[in-house]
Amino acid sequence: MQKPQILITNDDGIHAKGLKYLTSVMRKFGDVLVVASEESNSGQGHAITVRELLRLEKIHEEEGYREYMTDGTPVDSVKLGEQIVLGKTPDLIVSGINHGSNASVNIVYSGTMAAVIEGCITGIPSIGFSLNDYSSDADFDVCGPYIEEVVNKVLKEGLKPGVCLNVNIPAVPKEEIKGIKVCRQSDARWHEQYEHRVDPRNKDYYWLTGYFEKLENNEETDQWALDNNYVSIVPVQYDLTAHKEVENLKKWNFNGYGL
Amino acid sequence: MQKPQILITNDDGIHAKGLKYLTSVMRKFGDVLVVASEESNSGQGHAITVRELLRLEKIHEEEGYREYMTDGTPVDSVKLGEQIVLGKTPDLIVSGINHGSNASVNIVYSGTMAAVIEGCITGIPSIGFSLNDYSSDADFDVCGPYIEEVVNKVLKEGLKPGVCLNVNIPAVPKEEIKGIKVCRQSDARWHEQYEHRVDPRNKDYYWLTGYFEKLENNEETDQWALDNNYVSIVPVQYDLTAHKEVENLKKWNFNGYGL
Repeated sequence: MQKPQILITNDDGIHAKGLKYLTSVMRKFGDVLVVASEESNSGQGHAITVRELLRLEKIHEEEGYREYMTDGTPVDSVKLGEQIVLGKTPDLIVSGINHGSNASVNIVYSGTMAAVIEGCITGIPSIGFSLNDYSSDADFDVCGPYIEEVVNKVLKEGLKPGVCLNVNIPAVPKEEIKGIKVCRQSDARWHEQYEHRVDPRNKDYYWLTGYFEKLENNEETDQWALDNNYVSIVPVQYDLTAHKEVENLKKWNFNGYGL
Repeated sequence: MQKPQILITNDDGIHAKGLKYLTSVMRKFGDVLVVASEESNSGQGHAITVRELLRLEKIHEEEGYREYMTDGTPVDSVKLGEQIVLGKTPDLIVSGINHGSNASVNIVYSGTMAAVIEGCITGIPSIGFSLNDYSSDADFDVCGPYIEEVVNKVLKEGLKPGVCLNVNIPAVPKEEIKGIKVCRQSDARWHEQYEHRVDPRNKDYYWLTGYFEKLENNEETDQWALDNNYVSIVPVQYDLTAHKEVENLKKWNFNGYGL
């Protein structure tokens, strides 16, 4: 039986410790292609490169493993890996391990999860992994068994079309992790606080800072799971329709413009 | 009664015809603040600027109207407008008019709709408008009555927390438009075809091109509505949970790691 072809990317860049750790775990499962950017693309969301040219350079190749660097975004990396390097659809896409949580509303801003959603749109089983530790030297050792467990299940059971997975792992010693919990996305928001500065030419500029506000604390949510030392798994879709609102909006009877 | 404070942005840039048209319509409803980037941010998705500094410059001010230019993304524009210029929450955010469709899966890549979703996360009633014509000189005159109708309804009825609107308008003469249709997001995908070139220094580079494939043709969808000369309205949410899959995934009984 042929080994699965696995495509890996991330949004912390090709030198990130989380990417290297994820790669070492995934090489147990099949042939690995890494495509990632040289620099961090954190907070890039579902950005794609349409107005600029894209570079793609082979960095390393050995039996069962290839590594390419691009100047594109995480979503570009998925597209380039599939179209230019593989010339075919990979069997599995994994993204991460993100340095920091992608639970709750963080998924909306995340390049790591955008790559996963892109894989999902393309019809490929896709999983994003994040560790709840933002430091570049985070200890990823706790992640291995959970990644293997989730990947094994996905390879065996498959994922429904239009569904991918957002997996967040608490940054605590392995003996403190209570298990895996299937969740829904928690409601929360970031409050921006821009830091105002003035440059040497007397022009204003701003740095984005802010704090995270939890808008609920429900045991069914990924944020609760992560806060309580569970590995959270949320099934994610790219159908953004607020289905419950469709019928309500129809009652608005758009005056003179309705059906 | 105080006039509503309206924040407008887009992803085609501050000089785009669609933005100017939208602004002229919205000034009938209240005080308008425009914050937009100098250049196009098409395809920027939900990108935010976290690693670079941000500029924000006042371009124009008159009674009931202010215009600011930034080098940030559409989502940055929403945050900067609210935090730096207004110092308070606007009453309404409108984004567009996008030069080109944001129906179906296009919403995932759209900077215009990312700004709307950002407004929604912040708890502000938010609406995105798009015309199904990609040309920079598109004729937006057909849009006016539909924008007014939707904005009137939103100001009167409000939007549920966590719900915003994606409005797409067909690019046909006004007498051919059949009405407004409340829809769900259609399933579709883009197939990438990278165009390979070699630069004068003999290095490879790529341009993203591709074509759009409809994966369904259901009368309940926004793509069908647009194709059949209806103005489509989809209620959109930022909860990406595939709720129907939560119970299915729980049945996977994560071996040794379950609950």
